[in-house]
Amino acid sequence: MIQTDLCIIGAGPVGLFAVFEAGLLKMRCHLIDALPQVGGQLSEIYPQKPIYDIPGYPEVKAQELVDNLMEQIKPFKPTFTLGERVDHLEKQEDGSYIVTTSDKTQVHAQVIVIAGGLGCFEPRKPVLDNLETFEGKGVTYMVKNPETFRDKNVVLAGGGDSALDWTIYLADVAKRVTLVHRNETFRGAPDSAAKVFDLASEGKIDLILSANLKEISGNGKLDSVTLTDKTKTEFKIETDYLIPLFGLSPKLGPIADWGLSIDKNAIEVDTRDYSTGVERIYAIGDINTYPGKLKLILCGFHEAAIMMHSAFKYVYPDQKLSFKYTTVNGVNAF
Amino acid sequence: MIQTDLCIIGAGPVGLFAVFEAGLLKMRCHLIDALPQVGGQLSEIYPQKPIYDIPGYPEVKAQELVDNLMEQIKPFKPTFTLGERVDHLEKQEDGSYIVTTSDKTQVHAQVIVIAGGLGCFEPRKPVLDNLETFEGKGVTYMVKNPETFRDKNVVLAGGGDSALDWTIYLADVAKRVTLVHRNETFRGAPDSAAKVFDLASEGKIDLILSANLKEISGNGKLDSVTLTDKTKTEFKIETDYLIPLFGLSPKLGPIADWGLSIDKNAIEVDTRDYSTGVERIYAIGDINTYPGKLKLILCGFHEAAIMMHSAFKYVYPDQKLSFKYTTVNGVNAF
Repeated sequence: MIQTDLCIIGAGPVGLFAVFEAGLLKMRCHLIDALPQVGGQLSEIYPQKPIYDIPGYPEVKAQELVDNLMEQIKPFKPTFTLGERVDHLEKQEDGSYIVTTSDKTQVHAQVIVIAGGLGCFEPRKPVLDNLETFEGKGVTYMVKNPETFRDKNVVLAGGGDSALDWTIYLADVAKRVTLVHRNETFRGAPDSAAKVFDLASEGKIDLILSANLKEISGNGKLDSVTLTDKTKTEFKIETDYLIPLFGLSPKLGPIADWGLSIDKNAIEVDTRDYSTGVERIYAIGDINTYPGKLKLILCGFHEAAIMMHSAFKYVYPDQKLSFKYTTVNGVNAF
Repeated sequence: MIQTDLCIIGAGPVGLFAVFEAGLLKMRCHLIDALPQVGGQLSEIYPQKPIYDIPGYPEVKAQELVDNLMEQIKPFKPTFTLGERVDHLEKQEDGSYIVTTSDKTQVHAQVIVIAGGLGCFEPRKPVLDNLETFEGKGVTYMVKNPETFRDKNVVLAGGGDSALDWTIYLADVAKRVTLVHRNETFRGAPDSAAKVFDLASEGKIDLILSANLKEISGNGKLDSVTLTDKTKTEFKIETDYLIPLFGLSPKLGPIADWGLSIDKNAIEVDTRDYSTGVERIYAIGDINTYPGKLKLILCGFHEAAIMMHSAFKYVYPDQKLSFKYTTVNGVNAF
């Protein structure tokens, strides 16, 4: 079992900066994130995108900000569990918590800090009978390893960048790729759309536009997908895989069951210290809400600082907090 | 009269970043600061000192942070009145305000944002009879424009960085520079102190140590300064200017008389939007106070963002605020 002062759920920019503010008060942190790397949305969704509203940075690439935050918190030696989702939270008799992840990693902490951003990103799913039955048995929402699809028949569905990019990529890998899209035009990059139309006119993929998924069937394993076109005509395609790529939708996940006060997918907090209604559990960054809340990274930084001063009493119940400015001796004094 | 949406009192890091957050909501700002340059304490007191607790900066020199903030707000074309203290605030019939400075500059604004840090930094003054009589008539506490002293006789007093730096600088500008210091050693940077001793031994300046200011005299305008040395011997130096550089001491100043709720030299605000009790007047950064307040620059940044969303209604009473992220199109879209 991992022992720490604070367990921070979410290793996005706000979770990372919280390590710094904790460190200044001599509290140590362990961070857990469902994504396989730190940085949250910044690293996962738009690493190369410039951000303009980080104070003091006229422009900074998202990944660069994450790298700088990692450098900034290094003196405080945070530890990480990545690629695992937090599943359970169990209160101990002394008030502390044990956190258990999807992979059964356990962390024992005095204080829990939820810095989960918009929550876990879960795939948007098509509305189809028996969908769950075929999940992992031909239906998948993510291309983790393209080799899975080598020499297989694959039906992709969607009209955004993921659908276009994977259609182009898998055209060379799969036996046959069919792309199904409900409109005549694509939302994804015009370049990629043009490439997909070319592949279709060269006969290298099947492109079915203005069509919708109607039904899936198989015997223990997916073997066909039925579509309807705009004239409501039904037709069936035999396939090994169906990959609906309808985007990701943020979900609170198991956090929703921890007895916290939730309003519109966000955790209500007290603005005096960003505490939730449950003792020793705080929520900072995009995952919290309060009157006037702005979902800005810079607001999460402030919330992290304030919150740590409140959490101090649980980690050091017998000590009086004495606030020191870093300008005097730098971080090595902490 | 200067016309603007928001008049920001204080051009320290928080006042500067407030321009950015205002700009994102299409509100324009005019900033007033009693100091002759932007950056507040950072530029005035510790420009070369590294800061460690700006999120995303493992280390940044104070002046570098100020320069980056200036670069970041450039697209929003802020205007400045520097080296003037805000003296009066007058409410207009339509709810707007007219601000008047010590030099009678007037600014008409819909909203007042007090970002005054620890208050006006007022120069610590020597205890001398008739000091006020000669202020502006030979006695000055700040070098706003070094050219004022070209080919003049100047007596500087003090032992910190300002006294050393200005002695070195003015040695090439003034007719004759005399530096008076009450001790034998200097508090300022050793490099600068060494340079001053060099200038003195080369005969380029006069350095008078272990001496104190005793008396000033003149007829309508300063013409001499009398010193006493450690043996209590008095001697008189003819001079055009006396510049005591004994540091700055924070004062709330005239703001204390605006009917705001003040607690221990700080303005009490509502944490929902950092508004003061007086309509259209906000206070952000080190000058405000609320339960849990931390006097950190990063907290002021958050307060600026939240505050601007509240001030919007006074600048655009007929519009609904629509919040856009800068990541989509950068700041040029605003």
